[in-house]
Amino acid sequence: MIDGKYNITVVGAGGLVGRTMVRVLEERKFPVNELFLFATERSAGNKLNYNGKEIEIKTINEDSFKNIDIALFSAGKKASMDEAPLAAKSGCIVIDNGSYWRMNVQVPLVVPEVNPDAVQNHKGIIANPNCSTIQLVVALKPIQEHFVLKRVVVSTYQSISGAGQKGVDKLMSEINDKDNNSNQKHKVAFNTVFHEFVDDSGFSIEETKMLNEIRKIMSMPELPLAVTCVRLPTLGGHGESVNIETEKPLSVPALRECLSSQKGITVIDNTKNDDYPTPQLAGDTDDVYVGRIRLDNSVKNGAYLWVVSDNLRKGAATNAVQIAELLVEKKLFEFKTFV
Amino acid sequence: MIDGKYNITVVGAGGLVGRTMVRVLEERKFPVNELFLFATERSAGNKLNYNGKEIEIKTINEDSFKNIDIALFSAGKKASMDEAPLAAKSGCIVIDNGSYWRMNVQVPLVVPEVNPDAVQNHKGIIANPNCSTIQLVVALKPIQEHFVLKRVVVSTYQSISGAGQKGVDKLMSEINDKDNNSNQKHKVAFNTVFHEFVDDSGFSIEETKMLNEIRKIMSMPELPLAVTCVRLPTLGGHGESVNIETEKPLSVPALRECLSSQKGITVIDNTKNDDYPTPQLAGDTDDVYVGRIRLDNSVKNGAYLWVVSDNLRKGAATNAVQIAELLVEKKLFEFKTFV
Repeated sequence: MIDGKYNITVVGAGGLVGRTMVRVLEERKFPVNELFLFATERSAGNKLNYNGKEIEIKTINEDSFKNIDIALFSAGKKASMDEAPLAAKSGCIVIDNGSYWRMNVQVPLVVPEVNPDAVQNHKGIIANPNCSTIQLVVALKPIQEHFVLKRVVVSTYQSISGAGQKGVDKLMSEINDKDNNSNQKHKVAFNTVFHEFVDDSGFSIEETKMLNEIRKIMSMPELPLAVTCVRLPTLGGHGESVNIETEKPLSVPALRECLSSQKGITVIDNTKNDDYPTPQLAGDTDDVYVGRIRLDNSVKNGAYLWVVSDNLRKGAATNAVQIAELLVEKKLFEFKTFV
Repeated sequence: MIDGKYNITVVGAGGLVGRTMVRVLEERKFPVNELFLFATERSAGNKLNYNGKEIEIKTINEDSFKNIDIALFSAGKKASMDEAPLAAKSGCIVIDNGSYWRMNVQVPLVVPEVNPDAVQNHKGIIANPNCSTIQLVVALKPIQEHFVLKRVVVSTYQSISGAGQKGVDKLMSEINDKDNNSNQKHKVAFNTVFHEFVDDSGFSIEETKMLNEIRKIMSMPELPLAVTCVRLPTLGGHGESVNIETEKPLSVPALRECLSSQKGITVIDNTKNDDYPTPQLAGDTDDVYVGRIRLDNSVKNGAYLWVVSDNLRKGAATNAVQIAELLVEKKLFEFKTFV
């Protein structure tokens, strides 16, 4: 820290999330002393604008984390595994957008609106949760506090931008392929697909992430939770159709009030005027939007919610920068690393 | 009937569903004596190919239903209200794809795999259910029989083709609008939207249809059921993310077996090989596809299903033609109308 300002680096600055991190640092006026950008060879040499200055993206070397206060990582699993511990060992706090560290018991998994105190005893690596997890826990937190959650069933409507620039490019090229002659098993354009499957569980990797991360962030390891994750040909935001059951009785006005009073949530819920949140509406903003609040009479104390947020911002870059703001606010730059 | 063949008319032959009805009559080799096509002025004069013959679309007049055995309607609410009773009075059996008659207690609402006997005492008008209803009840029926349903929670992923040619045209014109300058509240392209809202219930008209129709078709007026309907920029099929709870214990193999043995269902469920149903896969076919069969441990006897079908075929045209086939099979051409 120099004069209350911090040396920051973004690792993975060539990707969709990395580029958004740079924009969000500027927009939120994070107290940056100097900003360094790293990426792989592919993006090295490119420049990103930050506060009117062009900053060149470089490749990482052994000195990259010297004198850096915070490193925002969004650079893939290998970087999380190999570079993040190096950074932490050299005294730099890593906020990692990847999934590699999230379930490690030594690593706080933080959504500032939900579990800010978890950041307190960090050991140099702090994990940023999965996009679909973040927006849901922001909506569930006030409901847990006011009504006590008994069960949550969620089906997601996730933007292909969650697969990065590669995913967006695939969608656009399929749309422009007028002959429709790509031979792949599952197209993204005009279709719905699932995330990768890596084991025999029947659950996709995205579904397993949500199941684990939501329980960890909310400190509810036994929360009954059902998750189905679906990827759509949409841009700029994830939707989530949520059915909750609670211990205490619900009403639509009480739910609206409790959700509206939660920092980070905007309630848009006037269906008579066709007002509800959409990915289009959430795009390029930082809030979590909730609408379609209805009672669900198929179960005791049941309700429906429709939760939308920009997966690249609150679902990734903005949440990471908010964690950095927490570190500043709570003065948490002294730590002993576990790696 | 002439020599075991029937005079058939399609009312609304200019629309997406009407055109598909003509194709399905041909493909399924329905015993047609003569086929007549009707539509509004807008489509009149156009011709559709049926069994190698060009048939001209005409406008309806007072003699249109004379000597017609079955009229397949997909022509909007006004035609259902005004023309369907005229047809029934003249002795023609109407199979109406619109929603107007569906909840009328005098009108059978039929999915041939689920409640074929309901057609027995028809009074000249038989209703074809909503697209998102049809595919779900086909999947729920064997589960009800084997495991007894306690609660069903469904979130839909519906193709914009459910809004007809107009909906498809809107999607494609938005995609091609490179400047992205349409000022409407909710775009369809790269977005998710909801169906129309017509009352203060908070439920869309599509959601209310599903809630009512599923219970009527399954003769389970009290079935605990939660429905959220979402419209997507997809073509050629609806997806449904379904969470069921049953009275009897479930297992994945038992569910697969019970679903596979149901006529009209194809199970595609091998996620390790990335095999699961999609709208792309279901497009232009008649089956209901089920995949992503998993146990849901968040509730006693819970499971997940992913159900996909072509909304224009099994969800509309094919189901209507199958009802006509039932009439032939059961020889149900004598009736006394209630209108």
